[in-house]
Amino acid sequence: MVELTSKEKKFLEFLKEQNAYKEALTTLQWDSHTQIPRGGVDQRSEVVGILSGKLQQAETSDRMKEFIDEMKMTSENELIRKAAEECERVYDKSRNVPNAEYQNYVTLCSKAESVWEEAREKDDFSLFEPYLKEIIGYNQEFAELWGYEGDRYNALLDNNETGVTVEMLDKVFPELRKSLTSLIEQVQASPVKADVSLLQTPFPIESQKVLSEELLKMIGYRFEDGRLDTSAHPYSFAINPNDVRLSTKYDENDFRTSVFSSVHEGGHALYEQNIGRHLMGTPLSAASSMGMHESQSLYWEMFVTADRGFWETNYDWFRSFAPEHFKSVSLDDFYLALHEVKASLIRIEADPLTYSMHIMLRYELEKALLNGDVKAAELPHIWNELMQKYLGVMPGSDRDGVLQDIHWSSGDFGYFPSYTLGYLYAAQLHNTMKKEVPFEKCLQTNDFASIRGWFTEHIHRHGKTKQPLELLKEVSSEELNPAYLVQYLTEKYGTIYKF
Amino acid sequence: MVELTSKEKKFLEFLKEQNAYKEALTTLQWDSHTQIPRGGVDQRSEVVGILSGKLQQAETSDRMKEFIDEMKMTSENELIRKAAEECERVYDKSRNVPNAEYQNYVTLCSKAESVWEEAREKDDFSLFEPYLKEIIGYNQEFAELWGYEGDRYNALLDNNETGVTVEMLDKVFPELRKSLTSLIEQVQASPVKADVSLLQTPFPIESQKVLSEELLKMIGYRFEDGRLDTSAHPYSFAINPNDVRLSTKYDENDFRTSVFSSVHEGGHALYEQNIGRHLMGTPLSAASSMGMHESQSLYWEMFVTADRGFWETNYDWFRSFAPEHFKSVSLDDFYLALHEVKASLIRIEADPLTYSMHIMLRYELEKALLNGDVKAAELPHIWNELMQKYLGVMPGSDRDGVLQDIHWSSGDFGYFPSYTLGYLYAAQLHNTMKKEVPFEKCLQTNDFASIRGWFTEHIHRHGKTKQPLELLKEVSSEELNPAYLVQYLTEKYGTIYKF
Repeated sequence: MVELTSKEKKFLEFLKEQNAYKEALTTLQWDSHTQIPRGGVDQRSEVVGILSGKLQQAETSDRMKEFIDEMKMTSENELIRKAAEECERVYDKSRNVPNAEYQNYVTLCSKAESVWEEAREKDDFSLFEPYLKEIIGYNQEFAELWGYEGDRYNALLDNNETGVTVEMLDKVFPELRKSLTSLIEQVQASPVKADVSLLQTPFPIESQKVLSEELLKMIGYRFEDGRLDTSAHPYSFAINPNDVRLSTKYDENDFRTSVFSSVHEGGHALYEQNIGRHLMGTPLSAASSMGMHESQSLYWEMFVTADRGFWETNYDWFRSFAPEHFKSVSLDDFYLALHEVKASLIRIEADPLTYSMHIMLRYELEKALLNGDVKAAELPHIWNELMQKYLGVMPGSDRDGVLQDIHWSSGDFGYFPSYTLGYLYAAQLHNTMKKEVPFEKCLQTNDFASIRGWFTEHIHRHGKTKQPLELLKEVSSEELNPAYLVQYLTEKYGTIYKF
Repeated sequence: MVELTSKEKKFLEFLKEQNAYKEALTTLQWDSHTQIPRGGVDQRSEVVGILSGKLQQAETSDRMKEFIDEMKMTSENELIRKAAEECERVYDKSRNVPNAEYQNYVTLCSKAESVWEEAREKDDFSLFEPYLKEIIGYNQEFAELWGYEGDRYNALLDNNETGVTVEMLDKVFPELRKSLTSLIEQVQASPVKADVSLLQTPFPIESQKVLSEELLKMIGYRFEDGRLDTSAHPYSFAINPNDVRLSTKYDENDFRTSVFSSVHEGGHALYEQNIGRHLMGTPLSAASSMGMHESQSLYWEMFVTADRGFWETNYDWFRSFAPEHFKSVSLDDFYLALHEVKASLIRIEADPLTYSMHIMLRYELEKALLNGDVKAAELPHIWNELMQKYLGVMPGSDRDGVLQDIHWSSGDFGYFPSYTLGYLYAAQLHNTMKKEVPFEKCLQTNDFASIRGWFTEHIHRHGKTKQPLELLKEVSSEELNPAYLVQYLTEKYGTIYKF
């Protein structure tokens, strides 16, 4: 490697400072979700607001602009140029947002999270509504300041999924919805019926914990570079590639909650733990996009540990941790029960066929909120109407309806589409991967290193040096194509439900 | 309260920013001691270094200087003026230390802590020596930059115990040493012998944990504003008055380790949890000094939960958590065993009579190191010599000698004297308190609220608005007077050992 110039070194030092804020903020976020005592919550919002403000100040400073211009013009180091480009993307978006306002917004969101928690607990949307209204207002304003082409919502999509637009989603989502609706109907018409009650049996939390840990080790999560805690909402917190922490939650009467959450978050963590170390300290030491991130978590949750082959190899092993009860449950019944399809109220409990319906509902609502077509106060009503339309079910309470997700309280508008994009990316990548790695054989021998290795080679190690659609095309030699997910689901559920 | 001027408000906002760095740093420190995975350690040093550098930058900025001058000149608000004075104290000391150098120093210390840990584990001083040498070099240089009168070590003392000087300690310490030596001799000559083996019996860690928690609740530690974790070195981490976390450590064969560490750290926490909320966000939201802090931890550990009255009231209660074994141990034997006096190698395991000998040894060494009279490489040898001279014992290894304390690896030079000052302050304050609160009666009824209330009223709530010696004089109507500690120890140990 060519020796860096002194200006390049200074640029990297400057980026390390911003990275320090990010690492501190992620650690504080992990702490807030898993460890903080009740008394500390309010003041934490202020601290997070101030540090986020400092970070934004640096990202939009004149000094940053000078570095960007100089590095883009003079640097012969590709990593430096890529980092400068990423900085420029952030600079161009954020520089128009006044720092004090941004800081107030972050403080508001940090506070809103705990209000949302209380509102959900008390099933009282009115507590949360004023906060949500304010958060939406900020997002509308920020979208204008960030700038966009076409729909205002594109400004938010761009934060999570650069390159993906409303125009694209408005084409892909209805198509996907049609296919999923047809699949759901075929499952419902099938004489084969999953009996989930077979899985819902008391399962000591201590054993679930060991099972989660063992599964994580199995797929290659490095505990020496992370840890597993408990939180209300399962999460992965990537402080840096050497410190990627997970949280899961436990339901004593349903092991699926912890086990599949742990694997899901573990999939996120595999991405972060395997980002190339040469990117550390720069803004490129991150996932390509939220959707690409989700593709990795869904991959391990759905394509690997929910695969028939996985359970053929590991059902006996699973039984060694599980209560006696499972001795009387056959592999066939167990596997079928894992694949129940049912229109339900809660997104994070939804099966792969109905899941994206929840996402599309949120996508429509977010677009309408951002464009001012729907007001915060109208949300509970419209939510319920759309649930009826998309899934044919009606929430009995806001807790099981509009209050179920943390995202809006954290200001995470524009994020939801990434979940379905994650499914689409995962299926498309799986299709390529299977040509290069003997997937079925890997599952027979619990050789997860080969699968993980393929993803590290093609996805993880690149961090944010490539945009999601660019990465997808490079790896799969094709544009985003929803047909792969539809095909995967049709084959899988067709086999299970015999259609 | 008079409405604040807009300049005063801006000053408080500026202080809040610095407070945000401090809170983040304390949270990271807590995390590093109790939660961080091994992989995260190295990078953490860098993050802590950068954020500490940012804090120092703000504390020594021109903007700060302007605020200080203007507030001191124009503000009619006492809190604002006190805050400005505290800022000035820090500004005047730190402004001469180049920011990059200070940041390197913090990074070095953060790294040195883990090297020290390894060196101690491997009993290999040579691993730690180069780091220690560098840390001493920085402290020598910083002392010159900070400035001092008289002995160079005064610059370091001033960081921990404003107002206390080498000249003062060189008078107080030998006097105290003489009294303690005489007391130790009397205990050794006594026919009464403590049998510690009565206490050293397997005690399930789970029960020790419950016991620690119950004791903490008893003395008034608020768990809703804190938490108790485990670490190699017991600690208290005051993020802010509403989030004060403790750590303790457990020895399955000696409950004293966890129980008295927990109470000790709990005493620190009572101070921090009861600092006036009007000081939050300013540099006055802190303890008056390290010694005053230590006076509170030692107070609850030694003056309360090691008091005969405490055990008369609570020994049966203790037995309800303790193994069967304690049913056969009488209160007299138990209490006597708690008060064994024995020259030993490890400071944190030392009894109240020999403890200060360990401190004086470190004080002499630190002075000599700072003044260049002793080199890092000579430390193991001189340490052992001084142990022989002060306590008549000889470490068999550096692990039990010069490598036992974390302080030097963290750059905490000038801190050790605060431990003995804490003893002295505690005894002097206890003497005043007993005149105003019926201490014995409080112990008979477990009325710790009255005792704690007195300390909150006179010490805690004032935070750092008063300097330690000023506070001591105000409360006890007297200058620092070692006679109170000597008198307390003479009475206590004289009663126990019948001299």
